[in-house]
Parts: sequence; structure tokens; C-alpha cells
Amino acid sequence: MQNTLNYIEQNKERYVQELFELLRIASISADPAYNQDVLDCADKVAEHLKNAGADQVEVCETEGYPIVYGEKILDASLPTVLVYGHYDVQPPDPLDLWKKPPFEPYIEPTAAHPQGAIFARGSADDKGQFFMHIKAFEAMMKTQTLPCNVKFLIEGEEEVGSKSLEGFVKQYKDKLSCDCILISDTHIYSLEQPTVTTGLRGLSYVEVEVEGPNRDLHSGLYGGAVPNPIHVLSRMVAELIDSKGRIQIDGFYDNVLEVSMEERKEMNRLKDNPEEFKSSIGLSGVEGEEGYTTLERTSIRPTLDCNGIWGGYTGEGAKTVIPSKAFAKISMRLVPYQTPEEITEKFTRFFEKIAPKNVKVKVKPHHGGMPYVLPSDTKEFLAAKKAMETAFGKEVLPYRSGGSIPITAMFEQVLEAKSVLMGFGLDSDAIHSPNEHFGLYNFYKGIESIPLFFENYTKG
Amino acid sequence: MQNTLNYIEQNKERYVQELFELLRIASISADPAYNQDVLDCADKVAEHLKNAGADQVEVCETEGYPIVYGEKILDASLPTVLVYGHYDVQPPDPLDLWKKPPFEPYIEPTAAHPQGAIFARGSADDKGQFFMHIKAFEAMMKTQTLPCNVKFLIEGEEEVGSKSLEGFVKQYKDKLSCDCILISDTHIYSLEQPTVTTGLRGLSYVEVEVEGPNRDLHSGLYGGAVPNPIHVLSRMVAELIDSKGRIQIDGFYDNVLEVSMEERKEMNRLKDNPEEFKSSIGLSGVEGEEGYTTLERTSIRPTLDCNGIWGGYTGEGAKTVIPSKAFAKISMRLVPYQTPEEITEKFTRFFEKIAPKNVKVKVKPHHGGMPYVLPSDTKEFLAAKKAMETAFGKEVLPYRSGGSIPITAMFEQVLEAKSVLMGFGLDSDAIHSPNEHFGLYNFYKGIESIPLFFENYTKG
Repeated sequence: MQNTLNYIEQNKERYVQELFELLRIASISADPAYNQDVLDCADKVAEHLKNAGADQVEVCETEGYPIVYGEKILDASLPTVLVYGHYDVQPPDPLDLWKKPPFEPYIEPTAAHPQGAIFARGSADDKGQFFMHIKAFEAMMKTQTLPCNVKFLIEGEEEVGSKSLEGFVKQYKDKLSCDCILISDTHIYSLEQPTVTTGLRGLSYVEVEVEGPNRDLHSGLYGGAVPNPIHVLSRMVAELIDSKGRIQIDGFYDNVLEVSMEERKEMNRLKDNPEEFKSSIGLSGVEGEEGYTTLERTSIRPTLDCNGIWGGYTGEGAKTVIPSKAFAKISMRLVPYQTPEEITEKFTRFFEKIAPKNVKVKVKPHHGGMPYVLPSDTKEFLAAKKAMETAFGKEVLPYRSGGSIPITAMFEQVLEAKSVLMGFGLDSDAIHSPNEHFGLYNFYKGIESIPLFFENYTKG
Repeated sequence: MQNTLNYIEQNKERYVQELFELLRIASISADPAYNQDVLDCADKVAEHLKNAGADQVEVCETEGYPIVYGEKILDASLPTVLVYGHYDVQPPDPLDLWKKPPFEPYIEPTAAHPQGAIFARGSADDKGQFFMHIKAFEAMMKTQTLPCNVKFLIEGEEEVGSKSLEGFVKQYKDKLSCDCILISDTHIYSLEQPTVTTGLRGLSYVEVEVEGPNRDLHSGLYGGAVPNPIHVLSRMVAELIDSKGRIQIDGFYDNVLEVSMEERKEMNRLKDNPEEFKSSIGLSGVEGEEGYTTLERTSIRPTLDCNGIWGGYTGEGAKTVIPSKAFAKISMRLVPYQTPEEITEKFTRFFEKIAPKNVKVKVKPHHGGMPYVLPSDTKEFLAAKKAMETAFGKEVLPYRSGGSIPITAMFEQVLEAKSVLMGFGLDSDAIHSPNEHFGLYNFYKGIESIPLFFENYTKG
């Protein structure tokens, strides 16, 4: 193991330069204008896998963006770890809030990352994180210390719902067979308190449309006499959550697993620092469902958020218009045992129920995903915990995250294997926001933790 | 007079071609990208005034867009009519709803305009309408029938609040002195029931901003634990109007002139056809302040409308973000004796009052304007009524419109002259909307009515 760690230490500056190249590719899967960039990025990932020593490297076509595959099979009797990651990234807007262009990576220290952080869209989510696995693999290959079989599955549609992945995994179920899945696409609680993620929320995402008049109207001539879709939509959005933070959709909480007081006490060992939490995002106060801590609200409770709203004139200056339509994008985070199908259906029924009679409403479902839990007594969790404890030199706790990686539930179902969510970002890394970044220290600790995980898992 | 009308008849097809040239200039005053087009349009208007026979034609610089001036003074002892219009237009978005590009005029019949309508941004508001005055003036000059003095004042900032006009009118008060102001920037009730507009609503226009966290956040990691500015703004917009259509701003109705039941009965002689009104804009039902007809809601009652709302991700696909900020544009239509200053201040106070403690709100005032009334027993009203009755061959009624031409109150104050609102569009002409148009028949009837007004007014 010491050889591997030495190799990593000697090559880590090159690793950063190689990651920069990957970050320069604007692989925005949500925006068709970046189609070629996404395809270029897939090719680049394949090239890296080959150079690191993987066999059978292939850019596999799908109906959407390609999935990059590669493997190293040492011996069929050894365990097999499947590494999953994604090379696509979130759209970078609003662009004007970035300090430098989102696809021109640079390093700058921050309060949370005094040794420097890599700033670029995708640095933490997920290019910087899946790249750690390729580089750790390279180190194990070069030092001949790879202890088990490894397969790589790096997709390009995670940010748009992994539309092609399930079909692909089902089709190549045998090729992808493995004992566990290793994913770095989450964050640790803090550098002082490293964690392994043991729970993820599911997701239901919808777009709604409210139509009033069949064309845009002059608000002077029609104002006050027709239903204005912006007002109607505002009232409907307001009706979704009550003043106590409870979601009003009929039956929304029916299948929610109520976590025991004992488990809640255990999870609250991760100290919430409310003042630091508030000041890190510039808030004078937080709010949410009554009776729960911030940590609980973002992990064991389901939530609903309007992620976008638009209608009417939004340009410079003033325009006196009553628009024909107004729109919103709304996502709901789910917990066991809610399902995206169930919640999308309940949302649709409720939204149609509360629509006033003089407007038409439409609900269009986007992607969804199941919630996921990894028990903290499993071999997979323990191998990850021990690996990170060695790398960080600190106790590692289990952590339930509020985010969603919908494919973990699918992997469990199709491949019959548990996913280990060994992520290395920080909560403050601004993923999905302007100025996304990933700590250099985190990047290096991640690369060190991975061979340790392979060793623990193979031996365990 | 017959000579003048003959001249108009012989030249009307050329008039339309000349108007097309003017409509091809994208003089969008709200968007700085169209700066040169607006300036080009001013030059074109000046050229038309010169060619029609005006003296002292000048493109007068202001701090904003220029004001085009021209005059024909026959004799100081004759009355003077000041013609006002504006050569700037509303932004054309949403562009994808136009059947053809907004600055490529074409003619097509519609249900309301069986003889054809000119489709283009600005065709009715206001290029097509002020151009009628230049062409009627040309006809009177060529046939030597101009009965009084005339001055032209065509501005380029009406759609952005006429920012430079008041200073200009005050500075050149003597040069602009007149007995009445003639404006065609309104519509008639219908071709069957022509009207002269005797009342206009005032305007207060504000932009609001709600700020929650100081940066965009990932809704999975933060959702349910922080104030989401889209939800907060939605609740605040919902609070502005109650379920009976009453505006909730403290003191909003304090200075509203309650119109007598007698006058309400008289104004309701203009027959509301609710079914036609609803079907023309594709609504199954209308709504508004309880206790008033649609006609009253859009004329003698003050109203509030959200003209735009935006925040978060509004592009294609899905993005799970909690935005830092959400915005709305809100306009209020005022009636005598509300003032824009009073209402903007009351709005601001109320909006700040209802803001929850965990967010910051900002209210930025845009332009405003005073309401206006022209009594139906004045010389000005009667000259217009008679002129239109001759041209249309039908009784003409007074009509209070819901729109705003804020400068009428200013003209009255500075120039001590009443404005006559002799507009010729139809309510269904889609001004401020995609596919704006102006009926050919309306255009011709307007050009005929103008010399008749000059004659009636001079003799009366």
C-alpha cells in the first residue's frame, strides 16, 4: 500500500492538470447546444481509462449520451467492484455570478479549503470525483497492487435523469455483474468530521403550466377583468406548503418512514452549527417543517421546492402585459418508502384540484428516482469507513444526505449489489451553483482512500 | 372638405406603403440593443413631416431618445392644435408566437377586419396612428384646406415612461403653446359603436426582488431547511389581492373617486358582450373585483397585475436549484384621484410589511402616470365626436378606457390644454402582444376623421 500512496504523492500535480483538461469540456447534458461537447467528453474519459490500464474500454452508444465502460479482471474468484460516475455537468447559469468562466478551471484558496480549491463547473459534481477513481486505479496498476477486479461505468446523463442507464444495465447485466458499486458523487459532513453517506433522498420533478387568456394581453385594457396566470400560479405555489412547513398534497406523507427517536438522536451526533450554517449562505434565519432539525429536514424528511418560475415580461424596463401562460419547475425529495411514481401522481391530482375554474393547468413529469439506504453494519459501509479513517486520521460517521442519486435503487434491483457512497466534496462546494469548486486536499484524500477501500473490501 | 377626402382616397395605397417602411424599423425603446433603430426612426419621422409640408422640422435631442417637432403656423389669430404621438414600440417578445417576424409588415384579413389588417409591432401602437395625422396633414396642405395652426410632437420614449418629455415640454412651453392636444393612441369600442376616449387610468409600475440565501443552492442538500425565494415571492404576490378581487395594500382605495350609479348606468350603455369578450381571448370565465362589470373593472376601478415573474432555472430540462433571488414586475392602474407617487409608496410599505423575516426584499419604482378625464361637454370632445360621426356615419359615444397615457395630465398642467383622445384601433388589435395589427379600414377612417376634427374645432 505504501508504494501506491507514494506513487499518488509523486503524480498528484499531473493528476490536477489532467482533470483541468476534462473540466474545460462543457459537457452540459441538459442543453442540446452542447451536444458535441458531451460526446467529446465521453471520448476523453475513455482515453483516460485506457491510459490508466483498463481493458475492453468502449464508448457505448445509447439512445441518449454514451456510457463509457472499461474493466480490469484479475481473477474470477476475486471480488468485483463496479465504479460508477458521470461525466456530464449541470448548466452553469446564471453566468454573470461566476468569478471566472465556468469551463476555465483555476485554483484559489477558500476559507473551507485553505490549501486551494479547483473552481469549474463539474469540479465536484462529478468530474473531479470520478476522476479520483481513474487516478487511484492508475496508481494501483502501475504499482501492481490492484487487489480485486474492477469495472468502470461512467455515464453522461446523470444531470438529466440517467434516462439510458437502466436499459443499459439491464441489457448488460452479466457484463456489469459485481459485488458492490462504489460511487463518489456526494460530500462529507466536514473535514473535521468525515462521513460515509448511508442514505439518499429520492426525487420527483415536474413542470407545471397555467394558461389564462389564449394570448398575451395589454394589462391596461384587460387588467382587473381576467385571470392573470402569474397570480393564479403564485397562489397555487403558495398553497403547496402551509405555514408550518407541511406539504399539503393529499396523501403526500402516507408512505413516509418515520425514523425512531433513537436513530434521530444518533444522527444528530453530527453537530449542527446553526450559526455557521446560516452565515455560510447569508441567512438571518432558517425555516422548514416544524418539529425537525435542519439536519433532519434535509435528510429524513421529504420536501418540496420550486426550482424555477417564469411568465410575462422579464427583460429590462417595463412592459404592461398579462401573459397567456406562466410556468414553474417543482421538485420533491422523497424518503423511504415514497416512490416517484406515487408522488408525481399525487402532485398532479392535487395541482389539478386546486386550479381555479377559469384557467387550464398542465403537469409534465420530468425524471424521478427512488430513495436509498445503506445500513451501517454492512461489509461495504465498514470497508469505506475504515479506508477513510486511515486516509483522514479521524473517526468516520454514517451520514444521511438530502440529495438524490436515483440510480442506487436501480443498481440494487438489477445488479443485486449495494452502492457505497464514498464522496469527498464539501457541502459548501457550490455544486449546481455558480463558482462550483472542489478542494485539492479533498481530491488527494479521495485518491488515497480508494486503494484503501479496495484492500479492506477484498480482505474483509 | 370634399377635395381633401378625394385626395386621401387617391393616395391611400401609397400611405400604406409609406407606413410599411416606418414599421420595418425596430424602434424598441426598452431594449438598449435597438438604440440605433430608435434614432433612425426619429430621422424617418422628421423626413415625413418635411415632405408633408411642415416647417421648422427638427429632431430635438434629449437625455433619452429625441423628440421630433414640426409645425405649420397659418395665422396667430387661428386656434392651434398640437398633435402628439410616439414612434417607439414595445418589445416584441415572445417572438415564437408571431406568425411572421414583427418588423416585416404584411396585410391579412381577420374576423374583426374583413378588409384586411396591417400586421407588425407598432402598427396600432402607435406608428399607424400618428402616421394618420401626418398623412391627413399632407392632404390638407396639398388641397390648401388646413383651417388652423398645427404643431407636431412625436416622441420616442412612450413605452418606457416618457422620461424626457416633461422636461422638454416645460423648457419649450411657449413654442408648444396650443389650444388643444390631439392624440391617436387609444382604441374605439367597436366598428359598430365608435367612441372617443374620455378617461384614462394612471399607472404605477414597480419591480420587486426577494432574496433568500446569498447564492444559488442545491435543492437536495438545502431543500426544506431554508426560505426559498420563489415560494416567498409567490406567497407575497398571492397576498396582494383577496378572493373578492380587492387589492390588499393598506389605504389603496383611499383616494378613489367612487363613480355615481347614474354615470355607471350611462357608461354601461356600451353593451358588454360577455360571451364575445370571453371567446375573443379563449376564456371560459372572467373574474375581477366583486360588484363591478367587466367594463367598469377596466375603466373606473383601480387594478393590480403582475406583468412578469422570474427566478431559478427556466431553461430546458430539469435543474434542482434553490435560487438566491426571485423577481416580479407589478403594475397598478390608477383612477382619479389616486397618484402614482402615493400608490408606489403605499405598495412599497405594504410589500415590506408582508415580507417574512428570513428574506430581504427590494422595491424599485419604474415610471408612473396620473389618471385623466375629459368631460363630455367640452368643445374638444364635441369636435371629435362630430368628426367621427361624419366619417363613420354612426353615433359616437364617450368611453373610459383602462389604459394609461400618463402625459395627458402633464400636458394639462404645463400647456393648460385638454387632450382629445381620438384613437382608431380595436381592443382586439393585440397591441403589446404578438401579432399586433391595425385595420386598413380603421387607418383610412382615421385619416378622414382628422381634417373633419380640424374643421369642427376651428369653426366651433
